[in-house]
Amino acid sequence: MTHSSGPSPLSGDKRGAPKLTIVKVGGKVVEDPGYLQQLLTDFSCIEGNKILVHGGGRSATAMAEKLGVKTEMIGGRRITNKEMLDVVLMVYGGLINKNIVAQCQALGMNAIGLTGADLNIIKAVKRPVRDIDYGYAGDVVSVQDEQLAILLESGAVPVIAPLTHDGSGLMLNTNADTMAAETAKALSGKYETTLVYCFEKPGVLLNPEDDSSVIDTLAYSDFKKYQEDGTINEGMIPKLDNGFDALNSGAKEIIITSASSLGKLNVSGTRLSL
Amino acid sequence: MTHSSGPSPLSGDKRGAPKLTIVKVGGKVVEDPGYLQQLLTDFSCIEGNKILVHGGGRSATAMAEKLGVKTEMIGGRRITNKEMLDVVLMVYGGLINKNIVAQCQALGMNAIGLTGADLNIIKAVKRPVRDIDYGYAGDVVSVQDEQLAILLESGAVPVIAPLTHDGSGLMLNTNADTMAAETAKALSGKYETTLVYCFEKPGVLLNPEDDSSVIDTLAYSDFKKYQEDGTINEGMIPKLDNGFDALNSGAKEIIITSASSLGKLNVSGTRLSL
Repeated sequence: MTHSSGPSPLSGDKRGAPKLTIVKVGGKVVEDPGYLQQLLTDFSCIEGNKILVHGGGRSATAMAEKLGVKTEMIGGRRITNKEMLDVVLMVYGGLINKNIVAQCQALGMNAIGLTGADLNIIKAVKRPVRDIDYGYAGDVVSVQDEQLAILLESGAVPVIAPLTHDGSGLMLNTNADTMAAETAKALSGKYETTLVYCFEKPGVLLNPEDDSSVIDTLAYSDFKKYQEDGTINEGMIPKLDNGFDALNSGAKEIIITSASSLGKLNVSGTRLSL
Repeated sequence: MTHSSGPSPLSGDKRGAPKLTIVKVGGKVVEDPGYLQQLLTDFSCIEGNKILVHGGGRSATAMAEKLGVKTEMIGGRRITNKEMLDVVLMVYGGLINKNIVAQCQALGMNAIGLTGADLNIIKAVKRPVRDIDYGYAGDVVSVQDEQLAILLESGAVPVIAPLTHDGSGLMLNTNADTMAAETAKALSGKYETTLVYCFEKPGVLLNPEDDSSVIDTLAYSDFKKYQEDGTINEGMIPKLDNGFDALNSGAKEIIITSASSLGKLNVSGTRLSL
């Protein structure tokens, strides 16, 4: 992983560094207009610099079905052939992103919708074919922290869709959790960065059937233990891998929580610790 | 029409003002990959500040048909109900815009895809219903020239999709020719602005059957005469109305030409004069 600039003068000593909150919101939240409106209202109340990264997989699957494009997932990852690439460009880059930007503007945030191609902020490489050909799926190779910092310093609120480009003219479908983590990693040299993963549950649960079983603080060693004994599984594993990766690379705080908790960040959800 | 800032110190005297070229490309050009690639290559050779405004109506109509959404046009204007709004958000804001941005990046331009909602650059009002209800169609009310100038000065190349917002959370379908003209008008206070409308024909023709009958310089009085006697008709009329509007509001030069002439701007096409 390379970033666009050398170590910031703030690296290793972020006392006094400006605060940055990166919020990632997933599928169900961006699909329910009422839920989304509430989330964006809560997001608008976050002070300091902020970035929203959104998903939209369920909407993409629904649109693909309408267009007769078959959705194929392997290990929670979408196989992106040319037809599916067009679908995700339309749904993530157009429909979802622009509606969120317009709503943010209405809430007084100077939002700007971005994919990785815009201002070349996030470049990726088409995932090499090993056992599985994921098609037009991108693995992030660089984040232009300087360019994002210029936008943030101008008061803009980046709204990032889960799409990147390869620098040779090709757009690529990219995991939103990973994009949020890579953005947090790249900007942690300049900002005291909090990364918040918002999803349907109130945090990482000890018992998936019991919403009150939230793990308040999850140490990496416990994550590995819970992963081994099956307490934590499926989609939560790559999310936590991304989260610990960001924490390990200088992000100050990683919180996994429900979208409805965004208005009260100090009181709930799972915090990761090393 | 209001703009975001007062008169620029350069207003009325643009000697020494930086040059800006705004290129608008329409339907057929953005649909044929080979044609588009050539156009973007020519566009990349334009020196100084530049902005690309794209359409995409034919692609939107084709996608609407695939989705079972009926296309209704009145006087060349699309009736945009809620389903059609989703289609144009997807096609203009996602599919076309992001592919163009990625290709521009590959050609060495630091492109940034924008709708009117992004950074609030172009605000519109939902067209009032008089005889016809155009639905979610926007009439431009303001262009943030300062914000666009900041992007241009940073070396970015805005790629603008024909979509605006109303400031209250609603995206609106907006005519690309008009957006290009309004952008030219707003930026003419700061830049020596050339507006180029690229379409399928080599310029405004005296005889639509004869591509060699290009009018080299079209004065407003002649336009009105040709409009009256039917020499100029249909879709060319609103395009020329937009062009003369921009010329009248301070743009330096308006050229109507074929996309394939963009590489040799000094030699062909129709130039408007007042």
